[in-house]
Order: sequence, then C-alpha cells, then structure tokens
Amino acid sequence: MPKNNQTTDPSFPWTGCGSDADLAGCRFSLYPLNDDYKAIILGSLAKVDLSKVWAGTDALSTVYRGRLSQVFDCLSAVFVGAYRPGLHACLEAQTSLGCPGDDDADRPAATDDVPVNRPTLGQAAFPVKAKLALYPLGIADYLPPIAEAFRLAEKVGLNPRIVHYATRVEGPVLEVFDYLGSVSAMAKGRSGHHVLTFTVSVGSPTQE
Amino acid sequence: MPKNNQTTDPSFPWTGCGSDADLAGCRFSLYPLNDDYKAIILGSLAKVDLSKVWAGTDALSTVYRGRLSQVFDCLSAVFVGAYRPGLHACLEAQTSLGCPGDDDADRPAATDDVPVNRPTLGQAAFPVKAKLALYPLGIADYLPPIAEAFRLAEKVGLNPRIVHYATRVEGPVLEVFDYLGSVSAMAKGRSGHHVLTFTVSVGSPTQE
Repeated sequence: MPKNNQTTDPSFPWTGCGSDADLAGCRFSLYPLNDDYKAIILGSLAKVDLSKVWAGTDALSTVYRGRLSQVFDCLSAVFVGAYRPGLHACLEAQTSLGCPGDDDADRPAATDDVPVNRPTLGQAAFPVKAKLALYPLGIADYLPPIAEAFRLAEKVGLNPRIVHYATRVEGPVLEVFDYLGSVSAMAKGRSGHHVLTFTVSVGSPTQE
Repeated sequence: MPKNNQTTDPSFPWTGCGSDADLAGCRFSLYPLNDDYKAIILGSLAKVDLSKVWAGTDALSTVYRGRLSQVFDCLSAVFVGAYRPGLHACLEAQTSLGCPGDDDADRPAATDDVPVNRPTLGQAAFPVKAKLALYPLGIADYLPPIAEAFRLAEKVGLNPRIVHYATRVEGPVLEVFDYLGSVSAMAKGRSGHHVLTFTVSVGSPTQE
C-alpha cells in the first residue's frame, strides 16, 4: 500500500518517501550574537527535555520531529534557555507538516500532547519581536489561511503588521511561541502540506 | 483595471495590493557570531551598491527589491562583505516573486540585469555550506520544480543532499549564490508565486 503522501515519481530524489504518521517537524538555527555563541547554543540545546521528540543536529541547524505541540514545546525551551538579559539572539525556524519527502524514520515513541518542557520555563515573559510567513502548499486557494494567521495574531493581542514578505508580531516570549504553534495547527487542517517559517528575536539594538 | 495578482477579498489584511511589476524581493538577516556583530552587519550593508535595488531595514531583517539578478547581486555582496577568516557567519534569506500581497511601491528605477556589485567582489571563493527550500505556491503540482532545483545543484557540482525539510548544497561562495539565483529564476516560470528560503553558512565549528 502506498503511504498517504507517498512520492512515486522516479525523477524525484526523494521517490519512495512518504509517511502515514501524524508527524510535525522543525528545522531551526539559534544565533546568539556574541563571542560565547557555541556555549550558549550547546548549553541551551542540552537543557531541553527531548523525551517526546526525535532530534538531530548538523552543521547548519537542528531538527526536532514529533507531535506539533511537542515540537513547539521544545522550540520555546531552546529560546528561553538561550536568553540572557542584554544578549541579542535570534531563532530562525521552519516548521513543516505533510511533506511528501517525509518518511517514517526519525520519530519519537511519544504520541501525547502533555508538554515536558513548559513546566520548567517558569514565568518567562521577556518581550520578543517575530516575523512569520505561512506557505500552504499544493492548493490554489492558499491565501485564506495566511489571512487567518494574521487575524489570529490580532485576536491574541500580538499587534500584527504586514511587512514585505512576512507578518510582524511582538509580545511576551511564550505567548509568541504559543501563537506560532497555533498558526501551524490551524494550517494543518487547510492543506495537506504546509510550511511556517519564522524568526524570533530578542535584544536587537536596532531602534525602530 | 485590477493588477495582475491583485487581492480583492476584503477579509485579507493586504486587500487592494498587487503588482504588475516584474519585481523580486528578498528579506534577509545576517548573523555574524561574535561580539563585533553590529559593526560587521552595518559595515557589510554599507559597502553594497544599492543603485539597482530598493532597500529597507527593520529590527529583524533587511529587504532588497528589484530585478531578481540585482537582488542576488546585492545579497552575495552582503555575505562576501561580512566574511573574515575564522568568523562563523550565516545569512538567512527568503526570496519571493509574485506575492499577491506585493505592491508597486518600494522599487528601484533600474530595469537592467547588469550587475554592479559582482565586479567588486574579486575572486571570492571561500567554501560555504547552504540549505534551501523552494515553495511554489498556488499550484497542485508543486513538487517538480523542487526536484528540478535538486537536479540543478547536481549539474553545477554543488553536491546536493536531501535532508529533513531542505536540500543541502556546498561549494565556493559565489557559485552557491549563483545557483540559488538560478533556482529562483527557474521557479519563476513554474508558478505565479514562489518563495525560496535559504541559509548560507561559513566557518561553522560543527564537525560533520
């Protein structure tokens, strides 16, 4: 039986892939802008409880795979773990659901939505700026979910603004991560495959 | 007359936008991983000849808009301008063509493809690692251009590999930027709107 989104075109380099698993994934890079970046990145990654995601790191980024809620639970822990007052740091991330190049490997055993990192993050509420872009794929009518993501930011009070090629939002760190997770959850029901790219930034010295 | 890709749905926050201009754009952030990041970013941006693009900077990123070739000419100049032996630096970028939220403002007068920065970059050929993800939007059959981007990397000798949610490539810096520009040029003919996201990295201390 071919899998739900299996690719069979032999000209595709990922031919034969596909997955029936309800699996989200995120490829991300953390950029602490100072001389101590290695220790900050490695320290932050090491503090994350990965018991409910699959994780892999290469020279460009780290990948977490699992249930959408668990991926965002881990991502927010990475960013909060890297935070130091005065440090400028950015997280650049790309979350994906339903990719036809996906496969059934590299996934965790956990199938529940009980977060394991959030209870350890305390009352983290430092202000962050973020931009996001949602790409619903494989459908002609891809604009409504993008508009819905904007309205969702209004609803939760993150002050969205349309800028070239993205939507800007701002607010307390965990509220912003919760919002980003909710955008991906909303988009999941709107197309078989979507990607949400976003940047979360703290401590930028740029005055606006 | 409505513009070519004009949005008229009043529920969209960008309603009324749209553009007939043959305009590419790129939103990008440069991350030099050291204490001197501000001077490196500002110095690199200041060295770029912007006479053939429109440019704008906010707290999260810089945007260049113009002809596709000119946008990539400037982008490669930003990255080469930030290069110092031993420095780990990354460029995170999102290029877009045909966005229905686009408008006719914020564009340069230049309409030719003669590069103004490339002649100043000398023989820059330091090795970089990059990842890219192409998102052709608004079409059901969006996988063929993605496969074509992979084959194009094989053809130009950048050693592509499929990884979770992206394609990895590696090679001399200007060859990688030329390749990324050619991916966007190829995708332009395949759907009305596409986005190409990519990361170019130099000097990562991570061993693979």
